[in-house]
Amino acid sequence: MEGKDILKELRPYEQGMQTEEVKRKYNLDHIVKLASNENPFGFSPKVKSVLKDADIDFNIYPDGHATELSSALAIHLSIEEDEIAFSSGLDEMILIISRCFLEKGKNTVMAVPTFPQYKHQARIEGAEAREVPLKETGDHDLDEMLAQIDEDTAIVWICSPNNPTGCPITEEQLNRFMDQCPNNVLVVLDEAYYEFARKESDLHALDKFRKYPNLLILRTFSKAYGLAGLRIGYAIGNSSIIGKLNVARGPFNTSSIAQKAAVAALGDQSFINEVTVKNIEIREDFAEFLNSIGWECFISETNFLLVKTPTDDIEVFQKLLERGFIIRPGSKVGWPQTIRVTIGKADDMELMKQAIREIDAVFAKVEE
Amino acid sequence: MEGKDILKELRPYEQGMQTEEVKRKYNLDHIVKLASNENPFGFSPKVKSVLKDADIDFNIYPDGHATELSSALAIHLSIEEDEIAFSSGLDEMILIISRCFLEKGKNTVMAVPTFPQYKHQARIEGAEAREVPLKETGDHDLDEMLAQIDEDTAIVWICSPNNPTGCPITEEQLNRFMDQCPNNVLVVLDEAYYEFARKESDLHALDKFRKYPNLLILRTFSKAYGLAGLRIGYAIGNSSIIGKLNVARGPFNTSSIAQKAAVAALGDQSFINEVTVKNIEIREDFAEFLNSIGWECFISETNFLLVKTPTDDIEVFQKLLERGFIIRPGSKVGWPQTIRVTIGKADDMELMKQAIREIDAVFAKVEE
Repeated sequence: MEGKDILKELRPYEQGMQTEEVKRKYNLDHIVKLASNENPFGFSPKVKSVLKDADIDFNIYPDGHATELSSALAIHLSIEEDEIAFSSGLDEMILIISRCFLEKGKNTVMAVPTFPQYKHQARIEGAEAREVPLKETGDHDLDEMLAQIDEDTAIVWICSPNNPTGCPITEEQLNRFMDQCPNNVLVVLDEAYYEFARKESDLHALDKFRKYPNLLILRTFSKAYGLAGLRIGYAIGNSSIIGKLNVARGPFNTSSIAQKAAVAALGDQSFINEVTVKNIEIREDFAEFLNSIGWECFISETNFLLVKTPTDDIEVFQKLLERGFIIRPGSKVGWPQTIRVTIGKADDMELMKQAIREIDAVFAKVEE
Repeated sequence: MEGKDILKELRPYEQGMQTEEVKRKYNLDHIVKLASNENPFGFSPKVKSVLKDADIDFNIYPDGHATELSSALAIHLSIEEDEIAFSSGLDEMILIISRCFLEKGKNTVMAVPTFPQYKHQARIEGAEAREVPLKETGDHDLDEMLAQIDEDTAIVWICSPNNPTGCPITEEQLNRFMDQCPNNVLVVLDEAYYEFARKESDLHALDKFRKYPNLLILRTFSKAYGLAGLRIGYAIGNSSIIGKLNVARGPFNTSSIAQKAAVAALGDQSFINEVTVKNIEIREDFAEFLNSIGWECFISETNFLLVKTPTDDIEVFQKLLERGFIIRPGSKVGWPQTIRVTIGKADDMELMKQAIREIDAVFAKVEE
């Protein structure tokens, strides 16, 4: 009844504070949650109307093949249905991939800091997690990651744009990496924030998975699509990899309502366009403000910014919390003396600027 | 990129046919789906009104601790919150348990036939699945299961009432089993159909997990509660086991809408009472009919019946399908020459009787 030894060492995921919790604790009316990189603009009105109109048979099991969604997504991406697998959010996909490809004696290469579930799930599988520090700029050190690959390496994780720094890898970097990476190593490119990367020069990974059959691309409806609460994400890759993921996943791992909502959300690309354009505008404005007061930001192509703080990040976190802003302290995501701030609505970000000005003034006073 | 060897041998879950699929294929208007042991009476109206009234923030991540549901369920069951873990349906719970407690060199004991995910998930973990045939009556052979336990046994699965036979184990049988089972072996009692077992003599497993800290009880909102499409189930047991499951699960493995719906469903016990009483009445009436034409049924305390067929079950399945009834052929669930029939609404079961009468007449003619 002991189970795997590793379970004694690992701790459950520590989630950010809930809005209601902060409201009660600090007796505040207006809470701005900027901790989980959620979409502050909600989700497409088309999702709302589909869910309202549909008399949903919750008593019936979901379609385990997610037929309708699968078909819609294949058309949207111009790929085949057997090149897509679905999961209950990308958290579950990372678990499934780890379970399929990792075991004792294998190792897996990833950046540090990056999305923590890669390491957590690898350790449960008994695999060694080889963590390669990001560059000072917050970028992946792909050369060092290549150097860490050996004959026991089963998976390389590349989170692009990376969480928590926000930095993307470029088209050229990916090509170079894939050309040098042994083709028996699965390269998982986690594009959870894909929709926010909108520059001409950005990565077009989807064009590459047929050229590199060991490339698996992850995307989600949790971020730009605003469906985090419903839990639905997907992997795109060679049908033989997808087939393995489908063996290891639960038979009904995505809910019927998530499937329906995702189809509707996919059908409203103008919503995605609108929210990502707005996000970039607000992000750039906020970054400019931060730079103007000397709080330096990492280059981000996501809906969040990693910001260097003039003092201990837990202290900054606490002061923001008391003012009704929930953010993620950097020391909880692997980069102390920073805070990770989701880009919220313009009005809320103005309030946030005000709060940061106040906090910055307090620190300036202490230093005097 | 090969992944675990076992993945080459295993196949994805083969789900039953979808209603729309059958409608199209056979050009029928009225389809009665009796294949997945869903609740034909739907779900509590309280769930409907909660979901309608709530302006659900799908863009916000679920509460990973399912705080509100956890608290409601702990009160409902008179247990502590740290004695409950949630999962996206019991399929996911079986995966999580397997991942925590099984690995190469370990074995796990289960009945055959029983719920197929126990074996499927064990094999992915590289553990040996020791399958002990059910008795001819469809009951667990608990003595032989005990005999199969050795020093490498990590989990024993007992599905009670058992899927696909419907047979429950008794209070006395469980006590006897637990008293003899080594206390370092995790005993998972899968009570997915718990709410349908309503006899005085039935098992009250919930009273036992404190006496036997190696007993873990599984329950779900998919069956009597009618929330299969939303994916939510739970495990009850010693807080140290629950703690391990919480380490291995994804941080946001149940959706916010499933949590909300489960709280509402739990608050309407009169619905559960009503549907289970109706189910038993219709089940007994249907069993009586089947017996009257010589199609023998196994004793069931669930919302389904396993029925012996006078001829090949795939043939019976096909003939029922053409008439608009989707059932599960026994050879797909491990007991050839039977069919597994979910108990539907009274009207639909009358139509089903008619269809069976017709089919039985055809077989009788062939035999003449």
